[in-house]
Amino acid sequence: MLEKVDLDESMPCEKYSEISKKLKARLSSLQQPVKQGGLPVIILFEGWGASGKGSLISKLILNFDPRGFKVYSVIEPTALEKREPVLWRYWTKVPKRGQMAVFDQSWYYDVYGGCGGVTDAAALRRLEDIKTFERQLTDDGYLIIKFFIHVSKKEQKERFEKLCGDKNTAWRVTELDWQTNRLYGKYCKVFDKMLESTDTPNAPWHVISGTDKKLAAVRIYGITADSIGAALKKLEDKNTAADITKSSIYPGKYNFIHMPKLSDVPLDKKLPEDVYKKELKEKQKILMELHGKIYRKKVPVIIAYEGWDAAGKGGNIRRVAKALDPRGYEVVPIAAPSPDEKARNYLWRFWVNLPRDGHVTIFDRTWYGRVMVERIEGFCSENDWRRAYREINEFERGLYAWGAVIIKFWLQIDKDEQLRRFQQRQNTPSKRWKITDEDWRNREKWDVYENCVNEMIKYTSTDFAPWHIIESQDKKYARVKALDTIINTVMDKFK
Amino acid sequence: MLEKVDLDESMPCEKYSEISKKLKARLSSLQQPVKQGGLPVIILFEGWGASGKGSLISKLILNFDPRGFKVYSVIEPTALEKREPVLWRYWTKVPKRGQMAVFDQSWYYDVYGGCGGVTDAAALRRLEDIKTFERQLTDDGYLIIKFFIHVSKKEQKERFEKLCGDKNTAWRVTELDWQTNRLYGKYCKVFDKMLESTDTPNAPWHVISGTDKKLAAVRIYGITADSIGAALKKLEDKNTAADITKSSIYPGKYNFIHMPKLSDVPLDKKLPEDVYKKELKEKQKILMELHGKIYRKKVPVIIAYEGWDAAGKGGNIRRVAKALDPRGYEVVPIAAPSPDEKARNYLWRFWVNLPRDGHVTIFDRTWYGRVMVERIEGFCSENDWRRAYREINEFERGLYAWGAVIIKFWLQIDKDEQLRRFQQRQNTPSKRWKITDEDWRNREKWDVYENCVNEMIKYTSTDFAPWHIIESQDKKYARVKALDTIINTVMDKFK
Repeated sequence: MLEKVDLDESMPCEKYSEISKKLKARLSSLQQPVKQGGLPVIILFEGWGASGKGSLISKLILNFDPRGFKVYSVIEPTALEKREPVLWRYWTKVPKRGQMAVFDQSWYYDVYGGCGGVTDAAALRRLEDIKTFERQLTDDGYLIIKFFIHVSKKEQKERFEKLCGDKNTAWRVTELDWQTNRLYGKYCKVFDKMLESTDTPNAPWHVISGTDKKLAAVRIYGITADSIGAALKKLEDKNTAADITKSSIYPGKYNFIHMPKLSDVPLDKKLPEDVYKKELKEKQKILMELHGKIYRKKVPVIIAYEGWDAAGKGGNIRRVAKALDPRGYEVVPIAAPSPDEKARNYLWRFWVNLPRDGHVTIFDRTWYGRVMVERIEGFCSENDWRRAYREINEFERGLYAWGAVIIKFWLQIDKDEQLRRFQQRQNTPSKRWKITDEDWRNREKWDVYENCVNEMIKYTSTDFAPWHIIESQDKKYARVKALDTIINTVMDKFK
Repeated sequence: MLEKVDLDESMPCEKYSEISKKLKARLSSLQQPVKQGGLPVIILFEGWGASGKGSLISKLILNFDPRGFKVYSVIEPTALEKREPVLWRYWTKVPKRGQMAVFDQSWYYDVYGGCGGVTDAAALRRLEDIKTFERQLTDDGYLIIKFFIHVSKKEQKERFEKLCGDKNTAWRVTELDWQTNRLYGKYCKVFDKMLESTDTPNAPWHVISGTDKKLAAVRIYGITADSIGAALKKLEDKNTAADITKSSIYPGKYNFIHMPKLSDVPLDKKLPEDVYKKELKEKQKILMELHGKIYRKKVPVIIAYEGWDAAGKGGNIRRVAKALDPRGYEVVPIAAPSPDEKARNYLWRFWVNLPRDGHVTIFDRTWYGRVMVERIEGFCSENDWRRAYREINEFERGLYAWGAVIIKFWLQIDKDEQLRRFQQRQNTPSKRWKITDEDWRNREKWDVYENCVNEMIKYTSTDFAPWHIIESQDKKYARVKALDTIINTVMDKFK
């Protein structure tokens, strides 16, 4: 893509100020509709060192009220960021609807940053991950505008020399910068490959010549204004007309494990008190030792609990937690999303709560809310939850590739058992707070839920993150089985 | 305090299980009232290496539902944390009302962590800062329970040896641990000094013998249950009875700068268009260069904007921002607090938004909301805002001690000018969104606000963070004066 760019083009001054003035007014007028329409906008800048990214960003954002955007500079990941999946530090920065995030270097940094080139398998995988990331966001209504600022080898060298000539700016040019210039041709190939393979219809690249800074600025103003305008138009159409195209259910190309239907799971398994006590103690001791190994080997472990109301998630989680060192695990309860969470892609709140490596995070309810409660209660559109199977599999596949152990539990009881437990809660003053009207309302939708859960288990039991159905009619049996499953899955990792 | 502890005490097994059972039930029953009453609880554990802190924390938290607490382990600060004030990493972890935060090592780590001892000025200053931090929280209704787990030199040595004897646990004992044991006497003195000087009535220490782990556990259960019980009782009394004791206004012992009353500030200052354009450009250029120096010298800069509605804060901020590199500054708009913010101490949202060193943060409205809108609209109690002058001065003093440059602007216009601008906004379609019913309502309370602002400026114009009144009747004059003030204050720092 780079060679198609005319690097010698320039613009006369008078013309610039006229066009620039118009475009700036247009940009300024767009921020209010962005906010009111709830359009989330991501604008990213990549390009050569000294291509002028910084000052182009400065100029662009001056057209917006500072309350509406944030600028992020991407540099070497910090020690903490290195202990998370590569995309983690970008997910945490995904803007709320109606807000803009401007990136001075972005997730592409991790492709060329180390510059092993983009031919090795790791870099190719990253490009795929980036495409997935961008697609998940744009499918969810995010606007992503991507700029690459291009300059010639000669121009770059001259700019470096000029910077070095002034003692106030000399510190800006690093040894790595000079190296980039020396290896300009090699970097060109890397950038080209990167640009081509991520130039998607939903998030296309705009390669801009950085030679004439004024021309570059007006190009960027124009593209930004056009892109925002088009996205606002699309948003409006979506809000007025019904969504015509229906997403098909496509869970992605993975190896799926065949799972039984919930109604086919026998629920007669039990443990007598004495066996339970003995087994519980034994398993907890094993898990305690394993936790030390998890920490030392820096393996992230993600345990996801789903199940019927009153299936015993809380008590089960506590038995697992008891075996863990509090410094190395966290329980993340998932309730209705907060306003900050609701204003972002639904996966955001799970991304920001991922464990760092060597740590364990237990999710008490999970991202599967998307295809259960959100689907059933209409908190998301039909297309949203249809797309979600694939998005969830991609999410978990990414975690697996990062090195995580993913353990997903469905705690299964039958409808009669739930009623017994509800009634028991109602009749025990100290437990009454645990049961709400919502629980009773959900219970009425048992059959609808059961269908959804069956579908969910069918589409998301991948070989890297299979579901484990835990028969929980007997809480003791369920606790020991959960511990057992965790132990076995973690031990498999260490084989 | 340490020598008063009987390290040889122990407890018979039968007695333990009986007491322990009762206390555990009591603890479990307290979490729901904590949540419903909105009591924020901080429990921190300090003590010798191998004193058993970790397992005591494990035992304690098993009595609580994981949805109600978070455990934080404090170790060496990360690279990012080192670029913030020492207390920053603790402020970010302050729990919401109704939630518990359990700290395995805490802000005291920074006192003995480096173990230069607590005799040097820096350590003494940290102890004072800690007392301030704890007082600000407990004054605001937070419960802080502080445990120090004590073991003898001999006992510690034996435990280290035992850990080292098992290959699964040997890695836990570091060279530093051994050193602590060798220098036990020296550390004893450090801990003693630390405990004594921070054993305040609002956040007292509980020194617990770690020799008998069971006894230690029941002591911790008991103290925790008692403390929470007492705090809940106090909360209830406060909610039912009127607050009898009235806080006096005491802004702290600082050097205050004498400031004029708002009504005595002449507002006739103006700049003609051509002078304005020239000056603006010049000042922006100077600030741009200074920004590079701020970055290189790693100075944090905090610019706080307050002023009447329509005084021109937005436009003023933009002229300043234009001179800054977007990679090195952020504008933080302060509106009504989000639920997450409202659920914590009012200073929390400013702490978490502080710049790292070398960066500039511009606050568009600030922590002074406490003594203006929150005071006037009754969003906080009378005691809350009366205490706030001192808390704010302490906050700013801490920032100053960290090395920050603090610049506070009050943008002053008169009542007629505000009316003209309101009307102009109302009559300009593209600006109409800027004006709301609330603005008109605030305007009716002009005199009340003016009194509050005069009081605020009087009590918080310290020599390290004085107010600058910016005459803003003429926006051009105001912009140049703000730029000028920033430049001069930053240059003073570099003298």
